Amino acid sequence: MKKIHIVGLGLLGGSFALALKKAKPELIFTGYDANPKNLSDAITLGLVDEAREKADLDTDVIVLATPADTLPGLLENTLNEINDNTLVVDFGSTKSKLCEAVAAHPKRAQYLAGHPIAGTEYSGPKAAKADLLDRKVFIICEMEKTDIHLKGKAYEVLEALNMKLRFMDPEEHDAQLAFVSHLSHISSFMLGKTVLDKMEDDKNVFDMAGSGFASTVRLAKSSPAMWAPIMLENKKNILEGLSMYIANLSKFRDKIIADDFEGLFHEMEKINKIRDILDLS
Amino acid sequence: MKKIHIVGLGLLGGSFALALKKAKPELIFTGYDANPKNLSDAITLGLVDEAREKADLDTDVIVLATPADTLPGLLENTLNEINDNTLVVDFGSTKSKLCEAVAAHPKRAQYLAGHPIAGTEYSGPKAAKADLLDRKVFIICEMEKTDIHLKGKAYEVLEALNMKLRFMDPEEHDAQLAFVSHLSHISSFMLGKTVLDKMEDDKNVFDMAGSGFASTVRLAKSSPAMWAPIMLENKKNILEGLSMYIANLSKFRDKIIADDFEGLFHEMEKINKIRDILDLS
Repeated sequence: MKKIHIVGLGLLGGSFALALKKAKPELIFTGYDANPKNLSDAITLGLVDEAREKADLDTDVIVLATPADTLPGLLENTLNEINDNTLVVDFGSTKSKLCEAVAAHPKRAQYLAGHPIAGTEYSGPKAAKADLLDRKVFIICEMEKTDIHLKGKAYEVLEALNMKLRFMDPEEHDAQLAFVSHLSHISSFMLGKTVLDKMEDDKNVFDMAGSGFASTVRLAKSSPAMWAPIMLENKKNILEGLSMYIANLSKFRDKIIADDFEGLFHEMEKINKIRDILDLS
Repeated sequence: MKKIHIVGLGLLGGSFALALKKAKPELIFTGYDANPKNLSDAITLGLVDEAREKADLDTDVIVLATPADTLPGLLENTLNEINDNTLVVDFGSTKSKLCEAVAAHPKRAQYLAGHPIAGTEYSGPKAAKADLLDRKVFIICEMEKTDIHLKGKAYEVLEALNMKLRFMDPEEHDAQLAFVSHLSHISSFMLGKTVLDKMEDDKNVFDMAGSGFASTVRLAKSSPAMWAPIMLENKKNILEGLSMYIANLSKFRDKIIADDFEGLFHEMEKINKIRDILDLS
């Protein structure tokens, strides 16, 4: 292995580059970002050695780390242009539509559908950190559809980054992520909106915000360019989760209206069992 | 000053004791917790020197750090029993009803209505930490109603803990806290419930939870004994915030249903300004 090309030099693509450079300093990194500022920042920060839109034909692994709505077209074009020895991996947060889009592509075996479970509320090349992916989970979907030889290249890279591989089908991935990631972002964005709305009649409303608020609202700092597409790419699952969430909030509100102390207490007590579940995972 | 008495030896009362012991090792600490296990843990951990239900008559400051629903009765009884040189301070998360409850009490001037903006999702004496209150905000309500001499004792203690004093009226306090604390807890509890509900048909739903989910759901580990009372003590403000939150979530859902990419994008982009507000505070 000697050459890696990364499309999308933001938080994930950049962190991947930093970590892999450290683990395998002999590799050559090329890359591209459609945003000229991001591309020049990425070069300045040394995330990639050379900027170019198309990967060289002797590239071993091409990583696509762009927003979810750009991936189907980008993946198809990339597959059309590569040699037989190149593997394409994507880092997208939704997998069903993407896997469907290339299901019949003649070079489907040169694609590995991936998703690193890692991130922060920040975005862009400057947010990249060499340890972001370290010991995190990397989900692989439809692994049986990828050529076994090319898959070896991905495993070599992911192992060098200390990532833990998990295998699941795209539908299961999207259903689970809707609940444990996408819904968290919506709850956080809407909490932020609610307090911003309140600020219109009470400009000091943020003064007393403590660590609890900071924690629940942190994801409201996330990039719209990344998250707006996810809302539509994973629409069905997100709507299921969001409707359940709204219904739960409404029932909780009813209990407050009814001064139902016992109901509120027992509801919260039952939810506390999340302590054990989260401490295990 | 020589003697402090603390009622409620949990996260807040215990952390207060640990910090003040460190800052003023000459003080004698007595205390009580209605839960016998908590009381014996507090003694074992050295949070207080001696357990007793009633404060000695030469106590300088009595701190009430029990759940919000117990405070009105406890505060009234405590005021009834103290000498002229004792100050009573509470640490409750809601202030309007409590201040109202003792507004006409003959010893009103011996009470200081307080609220330290500090906490974690854990509770009980073992969760206490000496640095929990360090450099945090301590809100004081109706400060003009407290005797100036006795107030000096509170300032001496709070200064020793490096706490930053803020003054506001009880109604303003409760309105703001509903939005930047109480609503965060509801959003987090209901997010936890939604994913637990989903676990009934997908037992692996938590497997892919990352740091974003952990952050938004952290407060769902909080104590029902503390939080169920707050829901009713601050009912009016919480219902206002919760209704706004549900309406915002519903409008966001409508945008997803309508495939309104632009609407979703611009909504999230506007909310991103919370970055600047939170980084300032």
